[in-house]
Amino acid sequence: MFERTEGGVTAAPGFKAAGGAAGIKGNGAPDMALIVCERPCHTAGTFTTNVVKAAPVVWDREFIKEGRKAEAIVVNSGVANACTGKKGREACVKTAEAVGRALGISPERVLIASTGVIGRQIPVDKIENGAAKLAGKLDDGLGAGTDAARAIMTTDTIEKEVAVTMEFSDGSRATLGGMSKGSGMIHPNMCTMLCFLTTDAAITRELLQKALSEVIPDTFNMLSVDGDTSTNDTCLLLANGLAGNPEIDSENEDYLTFRDALRYCCESLAKKMAKDGEGATCLFTCDVIHADTKEHARMLARSVVSSTLTKAAIAGHDANWGRILCALGYAGVDFDPEMVDLYLESRAGRLQILAAGTDTGYSEEKATEILSQDEIRAICDMHMGDADASAWGCDLTHAYVSINGDYRS
Amino acid sequence: MFERTEGGVTAAPGFKAAGGAAGIKGNGAPDMALIVCERPCHTAGTFTTNVVKAAPVVWDREFIKEGRKAEAIVVNSGVANACTGKKGREACVKTAEAVGRALGISPERVLIASTGVIGRQIPVDKIENGAAKLAGKLDDGLGAGTDAARAIMTTDTIEKEVAVTMEFSDGSRATLGGMSKGSGMIHPNMCTMLCFLTTDAAITRELLQKALSEVIPDTFNMLSVDGDTSTNDTCLLLANGLAGNPEIDSENEDYLTFRDALRYCCESLAKKMAKDGEGATCLFTCDVIHADTKEHARMLARSVVSSTLTKAAIAGHDANWGRILCALGYAGVDFDPEMVDLYLESRAGRLQILAAGTDTGYSEEKATEILSQDEIRAICDMHMGDADASAWGCDLTHAYVSINGDYRS
Repeated sequence: MFERTEGGVTAAPGFKAAGGAAGIKGNGAPDMALIVCERPCHTAGTFTTNVVKAAPVVWDREFIKEGRKAEAIVVNSGVANACTGKKGREACVKTAEAVGRALGISPERVLIASTGVIGRQIPVDKIENGAAKLAGKLDDGLGAGTDAARAIMTTDTIEKEVAVTMEFSDGSRATLGGMSKGSGMIHPNMCTMLCFLTTDAAITRELLQKALSEVIPDTFNMLSVDGDTSTNDTCLLLANGLAGNPEIDSENEDYLTFRDALRYCCESLAKKMAKDGEGATCLFTCDVIHADTKEHARMLARSVVSSTLTKAAIAGHDANWGRILCALGYAGVDFDPEMVDLYLESRAGRLQILAAGTDTGYSEEKATEILSQDEIRAICDMHMGDADASAWGCDLTHAYVSINGDYRS
Repeated sequence: MFERTEGGVTAAPGFKAAGGAAGIKGNGAPDMALIVCERPCHTAGTFTTNVVKAAPVVWDREFIKEGRKAEAIVVNSGVANACTGKKGREACVKTAEAVGRALGISPERVLIASTGVIGRQIPVDKIENGAAKLAGKLDDGLGAGTDAARAIMTTDTIEKEVAVTMEFSDGSRATLGGMSKGSGMIHPNMCTMLCFLTTDAAITRELLQKALSEVIPDTFNMLSVDGDTSTNDTCLLLANGLAGNPEIDSENEDYLTFRDALRYCCESLAKKMAKDGEGATCLFTCDVIHADTKEHARMLARSVVSSTLTKAAIAGHDANWGRILCALGYAGVDFDPEMVDLYLESRAGRLQILAAGTDTGYSEEKATEILSQDEIRAICDMHMGDADASAWGCDLTHAYVSINGDYRS
């Protein structure tokens, strides 16, 4: 049992945050955030599968691998600190030291994340000044969480936050909140963005990581904006245990409650990122139902939301369903095209486009009306088994090309 | 030994062609082509790997599998005859019968290909009228080959032809020519388009197929416009044996001559398709050198030319090399980013961008000049081994989005 509530990373008791401008971005926009916990937290994380890993990803993976507890996360936007070699790794050490000094904690307790242009070196002096400045602004109000969510944005157009409260079997309650950023260089197979989640639930480190690893495949890994798997993708989850619930130390009912709440938060943030995809005008969801296996359902759904031609057709409000069938066909899954039913759905209605692989003679006018909304769903019924999956993407517009043609200038 | 010559599918003796408007496209543009040989030809073919296969692909695969000889290929543009069920398969039978009647040959000797909108039924009456009309226009001149090459275009902006002459070990000569179409829904892992090749070389059916299968992985399968693997991709190669060379029946010197000539033709057509990619302003080649294995070299090169973000950066003449490194990183190949050298090259010059994974401090102005040409090359030196591969793609522009936002209207 969980309920949606207000806020983001500061929703859970014991967490403070701050966000502001440290001068890393040239234009004076917010570009640095701090998340701090009043006591050391169990920490779980998942990271990009890209062979080219940014320096902070290397830092955090080592942190998680060693099972260290975290007291702070420092994030900058503007510079990715990827492909920066030895100097980039040294920048991580200096960043952790600066945050440690500013907060009076060990640098060993500081997690780091970066997003922005690949190949540029982090301006460490600006990070050092920024850490001192943000340490003085830390606050546990919801507004401070939103400040942090804004400071990690790059081409994002809105900040992305979510929070829920959950009730455990003994009646105790905990809160889970988070924020994420991501708009381009987003594609399945890792957590596809920066995401930071905080909770006051008491749970062992092992089960915290297990819960995160279990929800990622059906949430962030089902998200695609442009097929490019980033060098910096990071998802971190901190638990401080202040809720006072009996510590979750087995896969009991409370574990399932926590995992469901976590899945909801991750799915909610994934959809926010898809809808805010670079240049996007709509959230495009593909539900694959009645596939033969879960993994096949995922592969099929991801293939549809990743198809460049389908995304361009959605941008044009054109029910060019052949492109959806085509994308199912090259997903790497065997199926009979003459079994597939296809529906298009939005708040304007629901329309069956294909029955057993054949055009139903639907109204093109109605289809265009359905495809002109800001949240659109394609439902592919494979008629093969019981496995379902959903994937989230967006349309491909002129604006995507404009944003990415001159991103660095 | 081979030499470039003029022409396309009618360059080799014994082949005639015709192209014209059969009324399949709404706008009166050429939409039907015939290629006819004066005597039955050994035939080789490769086809899409998409699970959703167009009806003519099913027809041709069966044809090749049975080892039948071909006397004609009929091609239409405008309607793909994919996702058309039983009625679409019946349309193939009627098409072959109509061509058989028009030419006085068995329908069993007719190959079929279609390209265009998925899901619409073929207007068989128009195909029947078109077959009769084109049969009366057949000609062995080079102009007739060009008419055919124009009639198979969809969003292509120019016809694509190539021809070579080769000399065998006994001094006899043969000609190989071909045409292709393809501008969108183009991505590696099959032959990615329609391509028709004709030769008068004498070669067994088995070695004809072997030669085609050997050159495809390094030519058409290294081409990507948009990552979408079509339902209709077809590459057919016909040999009539009229050259009078000693029939190639083993992998001897003449086989290698023939295969080299075939590779040249396929690579040439692949590059023409990349350069004419939907909305493209340039041909973008990625050469991966010194990879550890050939397959890894191919995977790395394909990943770079397929990267949406890299393609958008090229469109903006922006040397955003981080996106190239990022695309190498998610190719599925393990390597050390700090070993990679990267060069950008065009007729404006050559510039080293990265040395051992680190920015060389190159001139951005010079890089932009290099990236403003219509043929651009990225060279990635992996410093791992001896394997090289090249892949071809194009930039991603506003025009691609416009073309595909309203393709059907």
